[in-house]
This record gives sequence, C-alpha cells and structure tokens, in this order.
Amino acid sequence: MGYTEFTIEGRNAVIEAFRAGKPIDKIFILDGCQDGPVSTIKREAKKKNVMIKYVTKERLDQISETGKHQGVIAYSAAYEYAELEDIFDKAREKGEAPFVIILDNIEDPHNLGAIIRTANLAGAHGVIIPKNRAVGLTATVARTSAGALNFTPVVKVTNISKTIQELKDRGLWFVCADMGGTQMYKLNLKGPIGLVIGNEGDGVSRLVRENCDMIASIPMKGDIDSLNASVAAGVLAYEIVRQRLM
Amino acid sequence: MGYTEFTIEGRNAVIEAFRAGKPIDKIFILDGCQDGPVSTIKREAKKKNVMIKYVTKERLDQISETGKHQGVIAYSAAYEYAELEDIFDKAREKGEAPFVIILDNIEDPHNLGAIIRTANLAGAHGVIIPKNRAVGLTATVARTSAGALNFTPVVKVTNISKTIQELKDRGLWFVCADMGGTQMYKLNLKGPIGLVIGNEGDGVSRLVRENCDMIASIPMKGDIDSLNASVAAGVLAYEIVRQRLM
Repeated sequence: MGYTEFTIEGRNAVIEAFRAGKPIDKIFILDGCQDGPVSTIKREAKKKNVMIKYVTKERLDQISETGKHQGVIAYSAAYEYAELEDIFDKAREKGEAPFVIILDNIEDPHNLGAIIRTANLAGAHGVIIPKNRAVGLTATVARTSAGALNFTPVVKVTNISKTIQELKDRGLWFVCADMGGTQMYKLNLKGPIGLVIGNEGDGVSRLVRENCDMIASIPMKGDIDSLNASVAAGVLAYEIVRQRLM
Repeated sequence: MGYTEFTIEGRNAVIEAFRAGKPIDKIFILDGCQDGPVSTIKREAKKKNVMIKYVTKERLDQISETGKHQGVIAYSAAYEYAELEDIFDKAREKGEAPFVIILDNIEDPHNLGAIIRTANLAGAHGVIIPKNRAVGLTATVARTSAGALNFTPVVKVTNISKTIQELKDRGLWFVCADMGGTQMYKLNLKGPIGLVIGNEGDGVSRLVRENCDMIASIPMKGDIDSLNASVAAGVLAYEIVRQRLM
C-alpha cells in the first residue's frame, strides 16, 4: 500500500503511456507547440478527459526531472493496492468489528477521494473498488482524499459480487443504499458490516443489490432525485458510526 | 428567485464583463488566436481562475447566439437571489419549524452546489451565503446542485453574524460544526434551527461561532483532520433530519 506521483517526459514517452493505458492526470504542453506528435497527445488527452495546461518553456524546465521534456510533460500516479487481509488486520488491531465501504462503480475522482476521506474519519477499515470501468486512484483522488489514501487500505477486486460473497462467509453483513429500501434509522447496522455505494447515475447494480442483506434508504424530503454520491456515503457511514457508539 | 445562463460574445464584451466583475464560468477561444485583446482575456481568466477552452471556428459558430463572436465567447450566469422571508414562507407552507443552512464562506463551487442539493433533500427551507469573498452562484454551482437551485431559496447577506442575530430574534437556534464541540448525537437539534457550515480550510469564523447557541462535533475516528465540507454538511443536516423524525 502506498501512493506515488511521477512525471513522464517527452513526446514519445507520453504517447506510449497513453497506449499502455497508464493513468495520466494532467499534461503540460509548451504553448504554441502544434506538430504531429503533440496533436496525437492532444487527441488522446481529449479522449480520456485529461486536462492539458499550456505553459512556457521556463515552467516546463522547472517541472522537468530529466531535463529532456521536448515540450511535453505528463503527470501520472501509481498506487500499490492493499489486500482484503489488510482490512481484517486493521479491524483486529483496533479490536473492532470489520467495517468496509464497497464502491460499485464510482466514476468521479472527486467522489472517490471524498469517500476515502470519509471512510478514514468514520473509522471504516478499508475501501473496495472494482477493477474495470470505475475510476482508479489518480492524483485527483489522492488530493481529494486529503491524505486518507495513505492510511485507509484501498483494495481493487475483479468482481464485486464475488467479493461480497467471500466477505459474507467471513461474517460480514451487507447493506446498500437504494431508494425504496428501509429507512436507515430503522435498520440494525451494528456488527461486522459492508456498506455498498452505487454509481453516481445508476445506483447499485442489480446483481450487487441482490447480494446485499439490507437495503437502506436515506429519507428524502426534497424536490430532486438524489444526494451527491459522496454525501450519501457520508450520511450512511455516519449512521453506522452512530449505531456503533450507542 | 431563478437561475439563467447566457453567453457574452465578442472580445470587448468579454473584457467589459471581466472589468464589471460579472461572474464568468468559462470561455471559448478560437484555437490559435493570439492578438492583444485575446491576451488580455487570457490574463483576466487566469487571474480569476476561469477555464479556457480552445475550439474550432465551427464550434464557436455553433455556440454563438449573435453570430458575432470574433473568436471569443464567455458563459455567464445570473441568479435572482431569494429574500429571508421566502425561507420563512417555505417553512410555513410545509407546516414545519424553519430549518436554514448558513454557509460561512464556502469557496469551492462544487461544495456549494452539493450543499444546496443536500439542503433540498434534507428538507431545509433555504440556504444563506455571504456577499463577499465566498463563491457565488455560478454555472458550476447550478450543475452540481442537480437542479436544487431551482427549488431551494438561496439568500445572499452582507453580514452573517447580523443575520444570525436577526434569525435568533425570530426564534431560531443556531448550531455550528467545529472540533471540540459536543458530539452531535447528544445535542437537541429539534425545533427551529440554523446549521452553520464553515470555510473548507479555516472552519467557522470566531465571531460567527460566538453567535451560535451550540457547537456540534462529528465523531472523528481516523488519522486525518476533517471531512470534506459538503460531506460534513450532509452528515450534520441528516442528524437534524433524524432528530426531527423521532
């Protein structure tokens, strides 16, 4: 477990990084640079929603670690993911029943970062994210987590439903947030628990929901549809905190 | 009360808008355009943290409403703020004790939008923001509010402390979130209430805190300092919802 940020410098290196599917957070390009490789980089960046900043040569020289940037520097991040066992270790260390937050396909890096931050402060022992489709641990996530990424284990799994089954076998109960569930204040959320938070637009997927023991709903008194995903995660995580404190 | 978005087209119009202090959300500039007025616009945009997108002439023609964009189109937003009385009207209509969320200098438009969204769903009757320093109602705020800006009254006031006094005279009790307060679950948050949320970095200002009747703290079990401001607002607002439901 651990998070590091590094630069990728030079046109070819950045193009290669895109082709290899490495997570790139932002790119600095020399202002006015318009040749073929730079156009390729701009196109790839657009496709992957990567922010481009146009800067002066002085700024690039300042950022550069190799001194050979050729007018292009990309920022990438690498995170060594934790294992499920790290989560159980953390719970054991603290002498607490395991409390895990599972993210079923969160797409916005700001939400992912804010949820990891909340997980840390609500005393969850770890966060589980899926390998595919969802956002990974980028520099934006690290920044939005306000440092929590260095303390709270994040585990990446291939199949969320299978992982839920595995954790159920180890004694966890699962609750997901969805409309039409039982009002969260009326559920028993004490004991070893996994809290499942769904995608920003679509909520929890059907298969994952069917694997949960309880469906919790947050009372909605307003005119619009749903809370922001990281706010919903916070409200539910703190209902678990409240019940654990009682 | 009402929110509208519109374009400002042409170099001079956009420069004028900057000089008049109008809220500008983003600017589209013709890719490759580098003359004097465009440089001025770029400089002003940088100063005010406004996003610039470099686009083709076709794209600009498509966005343009006047057909006279001269290579530059800015997006601006106008919001007709509500009055304090609108908040009391809303509470009266619903037959509920007033519930107001007061933001003491929130700076991030995503946080402001998410808090207005939460206010709507938690059944708060309005949100109060200060005139100076804090972020106003931009397009980003409108978008992040997921439509809530059209339903929940937002009032802008000159002096938060004075407004708190005024609302106290009308029967509201005030609670602010701060470390070292009483655990929120142990406070009585029923009845007419104002929830004060502080700035992302500095929290609630001293003067405002002194004007509050109660200081609530969210239990923190983690390694880092504090929750994201919009998550903290959600957790506290829903503690008020829970107590109101009991």
